[in-house]
Amino acid sequence: MDIAKSISNSLAKEVVSITVNQELWDITRPIHSDARIKLHKFDDSEGKLAYWHSSAHLMAEALENLYPGMKFGIGPAIENGFYYDVDPGDGVTITDSDLPRIEDKMKELAAQNNTYLREEISKSEVLKLFKSKGDEYKVELINELEDGTISVYKQGEFTDLCRGPHLPSTSYIKAIKLLSVAGAYWRGDEKRKQLTRIYGITFPKQKMLDEYLEFLEQAKARDHRKIGKELELFTFSQKVGMGLPLWLPKGAALRERLENFLKKVQKKYGYEQVMTPHIGQKELYVTSGHYAKYGQDSFKPIKTPQEGEEYLLKPMNCPHHCEIYKSKPRSYRDLPVRMAEFGTVYRYEMSGELHGLTRVRGFTQDDAHIFCRPDQLKDEFKKVIDIILYIFRILDFADFTTQISLRDKENTEKYIGTDENWEKAEQAIIEASNEKGLKTTIVYGEAAFYGPKLDFMVRDALGRNWQLGTIQVDYNLPDRFELEYIGSDDQRHRPVMIHRAPFGSMERFIAVLIEHTAGKFPLWLAPDQVIILPIGEKFHDYAEKVLNFLNNSDIRTLIDKRSEKIGKKIRESELKKIPYLLIVGEKEMSDGTVSVRKQGEGDKGSMSLEDFANFINKEVVKQIAE
Amino acid sequence: MDIAKSISNSLAKEVVSITVNQELWDITRPIHSDARIKLHKFDDSEGKLAYWHSSAHLMAEALENLYPGMKFGIGPAIENGFYYDVDPGDGVTITDSDLPRIEDKMKELAAQNNTYLREEISKSEVLKLFKSKGDEYKVELINELEDGTISVYKQGEFTDLCRGPHLPSTSYIKAIKLLSVAGAYWRGDEKRKQLTRIYGITFPKQKMLDEYLEFLEQAKARDHRKIGKELELFTFSQKVGMGLPLWLPKGAALRERLENFLKKVQKKYGYEQVMTPHIGQKELYVTSGHYAKYGQDSFKPIKTPQEGEEYLLKPMNCPHHCEIYKSKPRSYRDLPVRMAEFGTVYRYEMSGELHGLTRVRGFTQDDAHIFCRPDQLKDEFKKVIDIILYIFRILDFADFTTQISLRDKENTEKYIGTDENWEKAEQAIIEASNEKGLKTTIVYGEAAFYGPKLDFMVRDALGRNWQLGTIQVDYNLPDRFELEYIGSDDQRHRPVMIHRAPFGSMERFIAVLIEHTAGKFPLWLAPDQVIILPIGEKFHDYAEKVLNFLNNSDIRTLIDKRSEKIGKKIRESELKKIPYLLIVGEKEMSDGTVSVRKQGEGDKGSMSLEDFANFINKEVVKQIAE
Repeated sequence: MDIAKSISNSLAKEVVSITVNQELWDITRPIHSDARIKLHKFDDSEGKLAYWHSSAHLMAEALENLYPGMKFGIGPAIENGFYYDVDPGDGVTITDSDLPRIEDKMKELAAQNNTYLREEISKSEVLKLFKSKGDEYKVELINELEDGTISVYKQGEFTDLCRGPHLPSTSYIKAIKLLSVAGAYWRGDEKRKQLTRIYGITFPKQKMLDEYLEFLEQAKARDHRKIGKELELFTFSQKVGMGLPLWLPKGAALRERLENFLKKVQKKYGYEQVMTPHIGQKELYVTSGHYAKYGQDSFKPIKTPQEGEEYLLKPMNCPHHCEIYKSKPRSYRDLPVRMAEFGTVYRYEMSGELHGLTRVRGFTQDDAHIFCRPDQLKDEFKKVIDIILYIFRILDFADFTTQISLRDKENTEKYIGTDENWEKAEQAIIEASNEKGLKTTIVYGEAAFYGPKLDFMVRDALGRNWQLGTIQVDYNLPDRFELEYIGSDDQRHRPVMIHRAPFGSMERFIAVLIEHTAGKFPLWLAPDQVIILPIGEKFHDYAEKVLNFLNNSDIRTLIDKRSEKIGKKIRESELKKIPYLLIVGEKEMSDGTVSVRKQGEGDKGSMSLEDFANFINKEVVKQIAE
Repeated sequence: MDIAKSISNSLAKEVVSITVNQELWDITRPIHSDARIKLHKFDDSEGKLAYWHSSAHLMAEALENLYPGMKFGIGPAIENGFYYDVDPGDGVTITDSDLPRIEDKMKELAAQNNTYLREEISKSEVLKLFKSKGDEYKVELINELEDGTISVYKQGEFTDLCRGPHLPSTSYIKAIKLLSVAGAYWRGDEKRKQLTRIYGITFPKQKMLDEYLEFLEQAKARDHRKIGKELELFTFSQKVGMGLPLWLPKGAALRERLENFLKKVQKKYGYEQVMTPHIGQKELYVTSGHYAKYGQDSFKPIKTPQEGEEYLLKPMNCPHHCEIYKSKPRSYRDLPVRMAEFGTVYRYEMSGELHGLTRVRGFTQDDAHIFCRPDQLKDEFKKVIDIILYIFRILDFADFTTQISLRDKENTEKYIGTDENWEKAEQAIIEASNEKGLKTTIVYGEAAFYGPKLDFMVRDALGRNWQLGTIQVDYNLPDRFELEYIGSDDQRHRPVMIHRAPFGSMERFIAVLIEHTAGKFPLWLAPDQVIILPIGEKFHDYAEKVLNFLNNSDIRTLIDKRSEKIGKKIRESELKKIPYLLIVGEKEMSDGTVSVRKQGEGDKGSMSLEDFANFINKEVVKQIAE
């Protein structure tokens, strides 16, 4: 803090934490030797961490005040705000309706401007402290700590076991909102007690909180689960099982349009579609290495009633594609082989982790594997980048970033494959990305266990980042499956493999697309493209004629025959996000025309049926033009 | 035999067995009281049964003669011929190369004209007989028989435990061919000894045998496993697992064309595509009743690593579709709901039962479920018949029969549902079939456990029958899933369900189509429609131009650039069953034309590229026109 003040008073007011020799510290903690430092404001992620962690302590203080005897689990800062897991004691429950009261108490305590005091303390002392409070969860945590490195923080009457860092004092916390209450098992273990998790967020300015709450409202309105239900795209069934989406007709058709769109692009780029089963012998995944890596946390093997076989739900399509590659001899002239499949895979996730279409237990990858010669690797990589950039352009994800994930060079034993192969692969990714003009971030230690990768993150209309497409180089599976081709030298060689999925998965991609567009899909994708609104019952026959004409022209058309006022019909159709509204009445019927309204833009004048159909079909072609 | 002779001598020469009061008897067995009788020639299935069963005994006699001490299992007549399971004893093996010798011995014994003598015998006597022979398999069978109903048949030196009936004597057997040797577990139990199964067939005339062997040759040439490999349509991998086809690019594309063809028809008929996961909670199938019925013989449940859940690979799509039906309230005005899915299901089959694409462990049904009001049932049924008849016409299955499978009225406890519902459903099927002019056979006792059905059997180019499409009425699942709609009376009603699959499964249908067409698919389906054959290297550039033009016109085109003589290229392309061959040389290049040859028909003159593309595309449209 003294250093910040020595620079400027205004800076000192804003700094909330500091990095000292790569450790995050309280901004008020004395530095006793030369060090490299970095000051953090709230805007930095390191600043937010201290800010929200201190807010969690503040909430805990308020809770202890309001609920004497409450026991505390853990209370970390998270991506947006903080939470605290608490045990209010038998017979006491905390619900959403209690949150305002807790908020008020927090504001009161914040205004007291209590200092966050750090104290380093011996294990025996800290144990005594929390035992005397009866805080069994903290005692359990303390027992696992090493003596000599334990610290506690105290503000006002509240003391917490904590590594820090924290704000200088509670008055830094200006705007407070507690968001929700949920259940959470102690240490994430379903066999242990379910605690009460209270989520909240705080900001240094009320305006920032207001903006955040507005963002939350918008995100809620765009929630793909809500829109997916309204537009009847997909549903879930308790009986079928959690995290297993059932695609309703409009959703299945939307998904098929996306698949056909990608199939067409891929065909142009020389991909061939294959189809493989959704199970494979356990042996297949032992060969691929997936069983050793993921077997324990996956859906368990499927046994046969006789013959003692064991199968697994496929978690990946690649082993199957390797077996197809092996189904005939390959020559250097046959490469690259580009094998594509919309392959549905199954991966176990804890039920608490599931979320709409973004976190599911079964999903369809827009998967492909390219088997190529080492000299073709970079070019193939560049072609995949081209496909992904084309898709992003058509689907209006103008704002995206890319990340190259490389090996952690300090800790190579967790990766499969030779150093030489890793280096070749990493080089190819970096060069291809550079040559395609991508501005990439390189992150060490984020590679898959079988190879380095290039990931695409898109920023949606609310500014949220989503990881979508991925391209991975793999020198490993070709080794494990002993894939070969005969080179121009008549010798056997090993091909290189590229895994790639521009959408990632159909489920996740559609979820992102819904939230990005708020369900207002581009015309070519829209579940319903046109709705006909007759202004009275005597125009129903003509409206039917228009309907048939448009449906026969491959335009997805509805009709609204309810006896409602035309104004109401228009409003409701706009809410349903149908791109074009056709009003038909006396004049339209006698002229053989329709009055066209574009969703969100209003009247576009009248057109003949042919002209309108041509107009729509041309719009569609234009939207997906390369 | 005396009765036959009393009618005519020529008849007496041909009769081989007789039905007496619904029991099949030897033609020489005396009838001691009034009885209803039916005489059987070899042409009848009852005649073949006696003929081939007697042939099995003849083979056993030959084997006992050639391999003293051989032990015998069972030796029945089958659909085409007969087999005998034998235990040649330790160290003795019988292979295909031994078959001619056994055949010769059979011919020798047949010529001896030995009588098949029937003898009814007590259990203790027959046990003594086979124990003295050391025939442990027969002894095991005898121990399970009831005393007083046991018979043996003797011809020449050979005696067999047998219910009969048999031919009068061995000289009836004129033409003999032993076909193959295989392993077969005693009583089909993999834990018991593997016996040697010898297959054979016999006929009353050499000409009939010659024709049959010619048929076998043809069937072998049309074997979908062989053609599927040659045309690179699909493959299997030991590592992925038995009975799990991997669709290669050309096969996946063929399958997609068939699926798109059906999707288009179904869309016209008001079907909506949905997509559901390949697993479901065990509870889902407990609700549907599938678990109680098939659980024991199915792939075992998939457990989760935590949370103690149990899932099953879906053996049927219907439970998932019921859950979609339930996902929102339905009114009588919304019905029928026609829900279609190309749904991949998994069913365990013993490895020994698997066969190419016709008997697999994972297959994709062209499934749909129609949920309708009872008053819509018959009409919906008729519409499904229309779709099936359309498909049969387009795919050239002109020769088909239909079978209505009803309940076994004597034994109703194995069916689920009320008598009243069964009668309503059976009536609707019969009426719909009659009104559509189908000539149906009605078979009692062949219904599925949940409802009656109408099955379509097609006769292929070799005269073999294949069961394909099926339509089933189901009053049961709507009950079990408590499906409802609100009627015009504002009351809750239960919909009726129709299960239907015109192809049956994509795998099986494609297998039948391959064997029916011998891989010579109609133009619209053919994996490769056109091959360009340049008559020398200097026309390669022009050939490439033709290739691009045709591929851009959505015509699946190849090019053969090998430096082979044009005659050889033509012959090889014809063998590959590519419908059109385009020869390009000097004249074609300078005129901008192609010389067209049609597969199997020869030269069709020259055409401009545009004309040829139009011609092909028109042919395709014509082939699938309704």
